[in-house]
Amino acid sequence: MQQDLSVLYDIFSRTQASIGGFMSILTPVITNAQTEHERLYFHHIYEEEEQRLDRLAVFLPKLAGFLEEADTADYSSTTFITLLQDINLEKFGLHNFLEHLELSLFEFQDEERAGTLQPMQETTRSDYLVVKEILTRINEEFLPQVNHVKISDTHAVQSAAHGHEHDHHHEVPSVPTASLVAARKGLSVGSLKSFRV
Amino acid sequence: MQQDLSVLYDIFSRTQASIGGFMSILTPVITNAQTEHERLYFHHIYEEEEQRLDRLAVFLPKLAGFLEEADTADYSSTTFITLLQDINLEKFGLHNFLEHLELSLFEFQDEERAGTLQPMQETTRSDYLVVKEILTRINEEFLPQVNHVKISDTHAVQSAAHGHEHDHHHEVPSVPTASLVAARKGLSVGSLKSFRV
Repeated sequence: MQQDLSVLYDIFSRTQASIGGFMSILTPVITNAQTEHERLYFHHIYEEEEQRLDRLAVFLPKLAGFLEEADTADYSSTTFITLLQDINLEKFGLHNFLEHLELSLFEFQDEERAGTLQPMQETTRSDYLVVKEILTRINEEFLPQVNHVKISDTHAVQSAAHGHEHDHHHEVPSVPTASLVAARKGLSVGSLKSFRV
Repeated sequence: MQQDLSVLYDIFSRTQASIGGFMSILTPVITNAQTEHERLYFHHIYEEEEQRLDRLAVFLPKLAGFLEEADTADYSSTTFITLLQDINLEKFGLHNFLEHLELSLFEFQDEERAGTLQPMQETTRSDYLVVKEILTRINEEFLPQVNHVKISDTHAVQSAAHGHEHDHHHEVPSVPTASLVAARKGLSVGSLKSFRV
């Protein structure tokens, strides 16, 4: 457990640093936006990351505090359950960050910005998968009620643990889009000319 | 206090219903997306609202439980402080929803969808302002440490309460965009032709 929490601490510290780099790319784009739509779009992403940055500023010291006492910590305490809920929330934060980076890479295709965002995206994807795996393991061990409820209760209890898997959607069919189908056929597909800043 | 919490309960119940309406507009757009960028963009918004829906499914019963015992509740308890943190988090959720609606209204300008989203946006904006006002009042009353710290600590403590104001940015200059300036001058400005679905 101490090992897992330590890995999580490293990952969330790393993403905290990445947010800063991402924001500094977004700031001039927002300032120089040519339309209100473009400004709102990037400002919205900026704000969501800023909210995450504020949460991490509270969460990381909490996690560090728990890590210091990991040997003697009470894993059935409210403090730990609350920490677990925070980790679940930040798992979604990391997932959303990954998608903010993916969306931005559609827009910022110049060498300088893509050169910064691409490695950030790869690290974030790999970090996200590690967080998911650790969290699945911790939730199973320390939120046993999740694993012993009847099927119909699963969603509610998982939600209670903020652990519902949003990255697997049954509601929204994940069918290949026209462009993907075309790409697979080797056709040239015009990229989305939205803001292109 | 009971009155304030009751108003918050009504607002967050209302937004819970609105998310459903918004999602049902997004679903066919995602399914029929013509490019991967378009699909990711709307799917990302869909997922963030889905995360919020899951949080609300846990938060609303907690708030209702507290309301039932509002007369005898302990407002210095960990339970209440945790509830207050949840309300702060959902204030941001409501703010982000408002911006998701604003962004969508740039895309969905047909009568049917705009006719659904426009009133939803107006209600959400008004609800958000009420939540902000109530929360400022409650935070001042029940998180007194926020009001008695030296200036340099303010950001950290506000963040701790998840109460930092993200809707007033000093980091990102809020200068008029070219299109707004042009619009004020009465020039015709081409609207953003991004996805237009």
